[in-house]
Amino acid sequence: MKKIGVVLSGCGVRDGSEIHEAVLTLLAIDQCGAEALCMAPDTEFTETNHLTMEETGARRNVLVESARIARGNIRNIKDIKATDLDGIILPGGFGAAKNLCDFAVKGAAATVQPEVSRLLREMATASKPIGAICIAPVVTAAVLGKDLAPTVTIGTDAGTSAEIEKCGAKHQDCPVTEFVVDKKNKLVSTPAYMLANSISEVYEGIGKCVREVVALS
Amino acid sequence: MKKIGVVLSGCGVRDGSEIHEAVLTLLAIDQCGAEALCMAPDTEFTETNHLTMEETGARRNVLVESARIARGNIRNIKDIKATDLDGIILPGGFGAAKNLCDFAVKGAAATVQPEVSRLLREMATASKPIGAICIAPVVTAAVLGKDLAPTVTIGTDAGTSAEIEKCGAKHQDCPVTEFVVDKKNKLVSTPAYMLANSISEVYEGIGKCVREVVALS
Repeated sequence: MKKIGVVLSGCGVRDGSEIHEAVLTLLAIDQCGAEALCMAPDTEFTETNHLTMEETGARRNVLVESARIARGNIRNIKDIKATDLDGIILPGGFGAAKNLCDFAVKGAAATVQPEVSRLLREMATASKPIGAICIAPVVTAAVLGKDLAPTVTIGTDAGTSAEIEKCGAKHQDCPVTEFVVDKKNKLVSTPAYMLANSISEVYEGIGKCVREVVALS
Repeated sequence: MKKIGVVLSGCGVRDGSEIHEAVLTLLAIDQCGAEALCMAPDTEFTETNHLTMEETGARRNVLVESARIARGNIRNIKDIKATDLDGIILPGGFGAAKNLCDFAVKGAAATVQPEVSRLLREMATASKPIGAICIAPVVTAAVLGKDLAPTVTIGTDAGTSAEIEKCGAKHQDCPVTEFVVDKKNKLVSTPAYMLANSISEVYEGIGKCVREVVALS
């Protein structure tokens, strides 16, 4: 059974993984007959109240909150190597741009959480596929942009795609129910809630993205 | 467009709504061409760390945490009436048995959060369908058991089904990919993670349960 890593970044669109995207990624992996291996960095972040959409100032832990989505079945990303996986997928949510890297603040000058960067580089070196959903292609662009000039999508957002291109990646517009595949780099991406008007659209795009990652693995 | 209420109880299997069940309920409602209206009570609960599965002693708010699953698009249940809805669904997770009522502690002697009880009674009086997933049938049994003797399922768990029957409800065994419908009371239930071995099984059972609720509405 193929093993697909899922890199979570908390639990909630504003300060962690977008929950619908993460769950639908897990569903699509299972529907492909593959096994999901959830992981997250053991780091802190500042909580956002999802009713008021304001930061509260309280601190939470990325691994502990991600464990909610994984029903406790989750690993510290520092303990995972590319040899443990056949492919890896990063769901979106602001956590991808705030907790896995600091793209949300620094744009193209972002630095990436060291264990996330290490594992993505290992996957690329091993020619194993990487899927990136919604805003998560900014993480792959920040890690792999300079070396591999990968093609990715975050949908159609001009400001974000300009920052992605400054990282050395190429941005390609893409509708929500489709995906972009960079076959040379085995990098698959789909816009999800960067563009979606409904959870069914998110399910369709993520389903196609996940099936492509599993097919390339 | 039919409007289906979704009663959330937090965000995480151990202290709130089971996240996969809640998200797959929202997906299934959308796939039926209906609209989901998420709601939760504005009450507090004690946080469980989902990595260690131990209570931390910290307090969180049910409505605020539920807002994570709803992407902020959520209402206080006290502001919702049966006339606002065509049907209502309660996903599972320990939050259903700890935050919507105290069944987890008191079993058949449980009391139900007053606004949850009020809205479920209004729905039953209006002959509008109620769906209950996983452990959530304990809430419907506690509210409606004495008056309506409804038939529900929580899968096959003998201890829980005995407590449900003490409430005046009848328990019917049910496989994970199926559902039980009490046509007289328009009460639909499915076991989900009471029995599921995979998220795909949960999706199948919840899909059928939601379609039945929408069909009865």
